[in-house]
Amino acid sequence: MSKPSIPQGTRDFSPEEVRKRQYILNTLKNIFELYGFQPLETPSMENLVTLTGKYGEEGDRLIFKILNNGLHEKKEEDKNKLNAEWNNVLSRPYSSPVVTERALRYDLTIPFARYVVMHQNELAFPFRRYQMQPVWRADRPQKGRYREFWQCDADVVGSTSLINEAELLSIYMEAFDKLKIPVKVKINSRKILSAIAEYCGAPDKLVDITVAIDKADKIGQVGVLNELYQKGLSDDQIAKVNYLTFFIRESILTQTPIITDIAENKSQNGLDILEQEFERNNIKIGLEGINEIRKTIDYFTVLAERKNFKSSIEIDMTLARGLSYYTGVIVEVVCAHPDVKMGSIGGGGRYDDLTGLFGLKGLSGVGVSFGIDRIYDVMDELKVFPEQLAVGAKAMLVNFGGDNETYALQVLQQIRVAGVAAEIYPDAAKFDKQMKYANKRGFAYVLLPGDEERQKGMVSVKNFTTGEQKMLTIADCIAAIKG
Amino acid sequence: MSKPSIPQGTRDFSPEEVRKRQYILNTLKNIFELYGFQPLETPSMENLVTLTGKYGEEGDRLIFKILNNGLHEKKEEDKNKLNAEWNNVLSRPYSSPVVTERALRYDLTIPFARYVVMHQNELAFPFRRYQMQPVWRADRPQKGRYREFWQCDADVVGSTSLINEAELLSIYMEAFDKLKIPVKVKINSRKILSAIAEYCGAPDKLVDITVAIDKADKIGQVGVLNELYQKGLSDDQIAKVNYLTFFIRESILTQTPIITDIAENKSQNGLDILEQEFERNNIKIGLEGINEIRKTIDYFTVLAERKNFKSSIEIDMTLARGLSYYTGVIVEVVCAHPDVKMGSIGGGGRYDDLTGLFGLKGLSGVGVSFGIDRIYDVMDELKVFPEQLAVGAKAMLVNFGGDNETYALQVLQQIRVAGVAAEIYPDAAKFDKQMKYANKRGFAYVLLPGDEERQKGMVSVKNFTTGEQKMLTIADCIAAIKG
Repeated sequence: MSKPSIPQGTRDFSPEEVRKRQYILNTLKNIFELYGFQPLETPSMENLVTLTGKYGEEGDRLIFKILNNGLHEKKEEDKNKLNAEWNNVLSRPYSSPVVTERALRYDLTIPFARYVVMHQNELAFPFRRYQMQPVWRADRPQKGRYREFWQCDADVVGSTSLINEAELLSIYMEAFDKLKIPVKVKINSRKILSAIAEYCGAPDKLVDITVAIDKADKIGQVGVLNELYQKGLSDDQIAKVNYLTFFIRESILTQTPIITDIAENKSQNGLDILEQEFERNNIKIGLEGINEIRKTIDYFTVLAERKNFKSSIEIDMTLARGLSYYTGVIVEVVCAHPDVKMGSIGGGGRYDDLTGLFGLKGLSGVGVSFGIDRIYDVMDELKVFPEQLAVGAKAMLVNFGGDNETYALQVLQQIRVAGVAAEIYPDAAKFDKQMKYANKRGFAYVLLPGDEERQKGMVSVKNFTTGEQKMLTIADCIAAIKG
Repeated sequence: MSKPSIPQGTRDFSPEEVRKRQYILNTLKNIFELYGFQPLETPSMENLVTLTGKYGEEGDRLIFKILNNGLHEKKEEDKNKLNAEWNNVLSRPYSSPVVTERALRYDLTIPFARYVVMHQNELAFPFRRYQMQPVWRADRPQKGRYREFWQCDADVVGSTSLINEAELLSIYMEAFDKLKIPVKVKINSRKILSAIAEYCGAPDKLVDITVAIDKADKIGQVGVLNELYQKGLSDDQIAKVNYLTFFIRESILTQTPIITDIAENKSQNGLDILEQEFERNNIKIGLEGINEIRKTIDYFTVLAERKNFKSSIEIDMTLARGLSYYTGVIVEVVCAHPDVKMGSIGGGGRYDDLTGLFGLKGLSGVGVSFGIDRIYDVMDELKVFPEQLAVGAKAMLVNFGGDNETYALQVLQQIRVAGVAAEIYPDAAKFDKQMKYANKRGFAYVLLPGDEERQKGMVSVKNFTTGEQKMLTIADCIAAIKG
């Protein structure tokens, strides 16, 4: 028999890991509920047609497809058809429904759009939902990249109000404060990116400009400008892009590093410069974008008044958020702790026509996503998980067998009735063996119900941290463990 | 564009459904933790070799296999191999690793055994774990049977103590009391079934006898006896099986219907009759089985002393639990409410060598399972879900725009800071539209922050149940919503 293993890019989660992950998910869940978001869960499998063509060619390639069942039970004439279709499987990135008609969820966004369209008549709009489920991608596994990983999304569809953007910013702030991760939330607008392409006289180069700027974090300012040069932008055009992105970003960073200070200090000079340039050139979409960012931040400032958030918001013209479906305000969250090297741990934005993919036009939405796996790694690095998550039950009763075993079971249930998690070593094994188990599990207390304890109706309590041991009444023992 | 849909046998869970399901899962989780069980999560995908051959021929057929990715990118010579293997896919229920090397989890038991074997050197034994995750089976979908459904298991491996069996019985009792489902827990032993086959002189017919008895709930006593006749048992053998199963069960039902009463009334006459018969015929395995049931119930009686459980345990010789890997005590839970027609909502038992499948011999285990989907349906039918699960946020602020909108945002955050879930209608839409939304969502309160309220720093609170409306200070408003 070969040694058992699990598929590349997937993970088992040990008890400690499950508890820590649940801690993150529960923290987010409580905040989503506090803000009036409602939970949704969709199936792990979608019809393949629901997914193909939604994530670009690369995405189609990475979708995990499920082989149809019962192929070996087909009739001979069906098998001829299957053989023909098999050739399609071997020649194209997507597959035939005769061979595979279902696939694993690739993200939570497309299933959400599909759900909204299917249930448009029952739902109350604006519909605010959150969803925390695994997704699967046949990507090459590497450090921090898995084939099964969790996404956690919160979206509002059916409202164009920028209050939604502000509420989502507030959720980000509240969540990362609760999780004790210092963050920087970057904000920009897809409309500003469009305006920049227009401003430099290359509206046809919008995609190239967006793709280049999106790499700013990885390849730096020089790298971006170089890529623009290679894409055929003129020196003048490149200079203009540079002016409206990197130059203005610097100006904002220098003058108003923390937008939560805006209420006091109204010097959004970076945005002012942008505004003047767009006004002078009559670039309407740019003015719209600036307006939306300003209004979002105004709303956010009101929401932040009572909250004393610890993190900052920065307007960043070099934020692009890939080639996704965003059309308005976009945001991205990075860890602001100087020791942590990690890409974005969250991001999102407004999209104008997601449900249009499934035939429901004109429903605007805005959403944010939390990168659960990266958040977990950052929290581990910063050591900000609550300590008690590691162990579980706080106390173990030693099993001395016979009447003492019966007595131990009675004590055990009294402790549990008091709401304290506890277990008994189920076998009357050698004392050393039982203590070795207790040590490995890391209980805070070990309880010793022996002859004397049983006769007195008490129990000896050993504190595993201090080594101290005392004989206590059951009530005092419970109080000690709870304490 | 065709109307979007989801694969047959899968489900979207609406906000209300997610909340109700989470209520069940959290209730169980809290009890598992109280009893010292630890959470585990395994990947949705396992290597196909881990799963095949573990669930019988029918099981192999129902495993969802995942098509390997990148098949269309293979070299020509690899494609010839693929074509050869494709013929195997078309001729056998299992597939070639060149076409599919991964599959979706079919249950939680085999992945658990695989995990224990992989991590045997890190784990502290006895290892108590619980696991609540979806599983997938390509079964024909029908009412109450899904292709994606949730299993919830609690197991202990590495201990043969019957305290484990008793603890699991106690968990069942506590869980169904908490969920407000009246249940009957049936208990038997696989050893007694073996003994019955030996007793009637047909040890070679053990499987036939087990399969027939397992159908007792569906086809009744006459049906079972008839099936035994068809399997070739003699009249004398059938009479013996009947005597030790149905006759004795009747006797137990009549004389000691509730095992939690056993402490007072020691009349386990059914078991006594069995014991005499096995003693007279020197059937050791039967005596072992009886002994284990008695000891389990003795332990359980101690654990139940302080608990005042509402449900009953019944010894039932016609309980067989299918053809699974059980070797000792077996249990099954059915809803005891007279109006509910539903099969078992839980079951489990002891298995002696599960990890042997992956090369780790001699590790005994015992576990129970909760049927989440059926429990959900029963709770819906009995209307025992807490009411507040249906809605989520308790209050909505109407958005009157302008300064009143800003004021509404301020009030909103004060309510949330007090820990009360609330939302604002994000657009300053017509009053009727906002109220229609509020109605559809079913909020308990609608808050009206208009001009007068803003100037007074108060808010009008409309109770949606009584229709009553009052202007209150923010503090009083929060108190009113909190109820």
